[in-house]
Amino acid sequence: MTDDCIFCKIVDGEVPSHKVYEDENVIAFLDTNPVSKGHTLIVPKEHVDDIHGAEEMEYMWRPLVKVSNAVEEAFGAEGVNVAQNNGSKAGQEVFHLHFHVTPIYEGDELDITYNRSDLENGEDIAEELSNQL
Amino acid sequence: MTDDCIFCKIVDGEVPSHKVYEDENVIAFLDTNPVSKGHTLIVPKEHVDDIHGAEEMEYMWRPLVKVSNAVEEAFGAEGVNVAQNNGSKAGQEVFHLHFHVTPIYEGDELDITYNRSDLENGEDIAEELSNQL
Repeated sequence: MTDDCIFCKIVDGEVPSHKVYEDENVIAFLDTNPVSKGHTLIVPKEHVDDIHGAEEMEYMWRPLVKVSNAVEEAFGAEGVNVAQNNGSKAGQEVFHLHFHVTPIYEGDELDITYNRSDLENGEDIAEELSNQL
Repeated sequence: MTDDCIFCKIVDGEVPSHKVYEDENVIAFLDTNPVSKGHTLIVPKEHVDDIHGAEEMEYMWRPLVKVSNAVEEAFGAEGVNVAQNNGSKAGQEVFHLHFHVTPIYEGDELDITYNRSDLENGEDIAEELSNQL
């Protein structure tokens, strides 16, 4: 547990939450400011700030899939978005790794705009990335 | 391999890609219409349409973390967004499970708008979701 981390306090039960799922390593609970009905956060119990420290946390995978299934099925959603942000510049607000699972319903607008361009210098970029892996 | 699936063809080498990472189960390659420099897709070699069929694919986790690390580090990004869309309503365009990893740089605008409200009926919603899990 990390002092002053709201998600650590939720894990610890010190701050209440609407819990959806829990296992040995992971909890999932409703976002208090949902984008849509059923918006759920999936969080490792162990504190890491973001995905960069999470290589050993393979136990996140199955809860992520299970919760995505439940969120889509529970209220008749037409789809589900999974999103995970790293860094304040990327929209991260709580610095404890979490995945957003947000259902989208008939009549909802998807509020994601992608300003996409054509790939240029793909070979150089891929090489640079490969060198990091 | 599924006929007419562009990502299966990339896995198979039938369609070229700028490959960033590959292991026994997973490949990662550059998006041909990147949101930003280094925008990478992570794809299981086995065809599943979306996350709902992916419960056994825990092998996706480590590549997801590794690629997120590389994408943030390679070109000095300030953060990275991970996104995974399920269903055309949710913005999915290729119906073969994939994660987008998109770096965000100084001066970039984040093109995600969250229309958030206060959680209401959290207890009922959490109970309904728990029942699916």
